Amino acid sequence: MRSLKMTVAYVGTPFAGWQVQPRLATVQGILEDRLSRMLQESVRIAGAGRTDAGVHARGQVASFRTASRIPTEGLRRGLNARLPHEIRIMQVEEVPEGFHARADARCKEYRYRIALREPVSPFEAPFVASVRGPLDVEAMRRAAVCFIGRHDFSSFCPAGCVIEDRRRSVIHSGVVEQDGQIEYQVRADGFLRHMVRTLVGTLVLVGKGRLGASAIPGILAARDRAAAGPCAPPQGLVLEKVFYGEGS
Amino acid sequence: MRSLKMTVAYVGTPFAGWQVQPRLATVQGILEDRLSRMLQESVRIAGAGRTDAGVHARGQVASFRTASRIPTEGLRRGLNARLPHEIRIMQVEEVPEGFHARADARCKEYRYRIALREPVSPFEAPFVASVRGPLDVEAMRRAAVCFIGRHDFSSFCPAGCVIEDRRRSVIHSGVVEQDGQIEYQVRADGFLRHMVRTLVGTLVLVGKGRLGASAIPGILAARDRAAAGPCAPPQGLVLEKVFYGEGS
Repeated sequence: MRSLKMTVAYVGTPFAGWQVQPRLATVQGILEDRLSRMLQESVRIAGAGRTDAGVHARGQVASFRTASRIPTEGLRRGLNARLPHEIRIMQVEEVPEGFHARADARCKEYRYRIALREPVSPFEAPFVASVRGPLDVEAMRRAAVCFIGRHDFSSFCPAGCVIEDRRRSVIHSGVVEQDGQIEYQVRADGFLRHMVRTLVGTLVLVGKGRLGASAIPGILAARDRAAAGPCAPPQGLVLEKVFYGEGS
Repeated sequence: MRSLKMTVAYVGTPFAGWQVQPRLATVQGILEDRLSRMLQESVRIAGAGRTDAGVHARGQVASFRTASRIPTEGLRRGLNARLPHEIRIMQVEEVPEGFHARADARCKEYRYRIALREPVSPFEAPFVASVRGPLDVEAMRRAAVCFIGRHDFSSFCPAGCVIEDRRRSVIHSGVVEQDGQIEYQVRADGFLRHMVRTLVGTLVLVGKGRLGASAIPGILAARDRAAAGPCAPPQGLVLEKVFYGEGS
C-alpha cells in the first residue's frame, strides 16, 4: 500500500462542509466517491481540518492509502477531471507509510475576511462577510493579540462540545486592513469547532465598541460560551494552509 | 423625467450575456424586470457594452430614464435587494437629461486573463481561460502593440457582421504577466462583436509561435476573418471600465 497526501482547494458555497454526511454533498464524500471509482477500490480519506458548511479552503490537506500504482501526477489530473469545478486537487505527493493529514498536522492557518464598504462586488461577495457601520480596527488588533498563547478556548466553541481538553496554542492572531476589507489571520496547533468564527464574532463586537479589547482575557478565563461573541457567518472563512513537520 | 447612470458589476457565468433575449436570463433583462417592478413603470435601459454570454463586468454602465423620485442611494439599495447575487449595482448617479450609456461612451477598457499554470484554483477558474503549453510573452507583447491606432478590425469580427464601418481606435493594448497568469488589457473607442476575444485568440497563436508578431499588420490589412486566430473563450473576459467625457 502507498500513502498519499493531497492538497485540496475548494469553494465551500455549494457543500455541506468537509465531513461525510448521509445524503448531503460534502467535500470528503465527493472525494472518496471519485477516488474509489477511479482506483476501483474503497478509499477512505482523512482531512486535516473539518471545515463547516460554506467554509472555503485554499490549502486543505487530505491523506489516504491505496494499492494503486498510478503516478501522483496522473492521479491528480484524473481526479480533477472527475471532480466538480468547485473542488481542485492542487498537488499529490507520496508520503511515508502511516502519514495522517489530521494527526500529523503541526499547525493550521485560517483567514477570515470582512467587507467594510457596501456594495460588495459579486466577485468578492461569496468570500467575505459584511459588517454594517464602522469598525475600530486598532481595537480589534489589540484584542486579536490577546488570543496568542496557550489558552482554554471553551468560551469559543459550542456549549455542547464533547472534546475534553479545549486548550489550544495560538501562534499568530492578527488583523490586517486593506482595500476596504479586514482580514483576520490566525494560526494554531488546533482549532475547536466554530472556534475561528467565534473569535471573529468577538473581535467584531470589539470593533463596534460593544466590548473593550481588555475584556478578552476575562472571556477566555470564563470558559463559558455565553461570554464570547456570536459565531460569524461561514463564507468569510478560508482554511489557508496546513503545516507539517520538516519533510512533509 | 430624470436621467440616471448606473455602474453595474456582474459575474457573467450564469447569464446569456447582457442583451435582452426572449426566454433567456440576460443581465439587461433582469435589470429591466427588477427596475420596472420596483418603480412600477416600464423601464428600458441602455448598456455601454453588449457583453456576450459568460463574459463578466466590473464596470458596465447602464442608463435609463424614470419618473420616480427615489433618491439615487435608495434606488441602488432597493435594486440590489431584488437582484440575484451575481449582479450588483455599484453606483447610481444623476446625469444630464438625454445621457446615453452607449452613445456617450468615449472609450471602454476590457481585460482578458489567461492561466499559464495547471491546476487553476477553483477561486480563479471562473475568471480565466487556460492555455496548455508555454507562451512566449515577449512575442505577445510585440504583437499587442500592433493593434494600437486606428484600424479596420474586419478580420477580428464574425464574417456575418452587419456593421459597415469597422474602423476602431485602440488607445491601449498591452500584455502583463504576473503570478502565473497573463492579462491582456485593451482600451478603444469602441469594439466590434467578439473583437477582444479574437484579438486574444490571435495573440495566443503568437505566444505559441504559430504566428509571428510581425504578421499582425498583414492580418489587419486582410480585412478577412479567416486571417485572424480563433475567438478565445468568454470566461477570461471582463468589461473593466467605461470612460465618458469630463463631468460624467
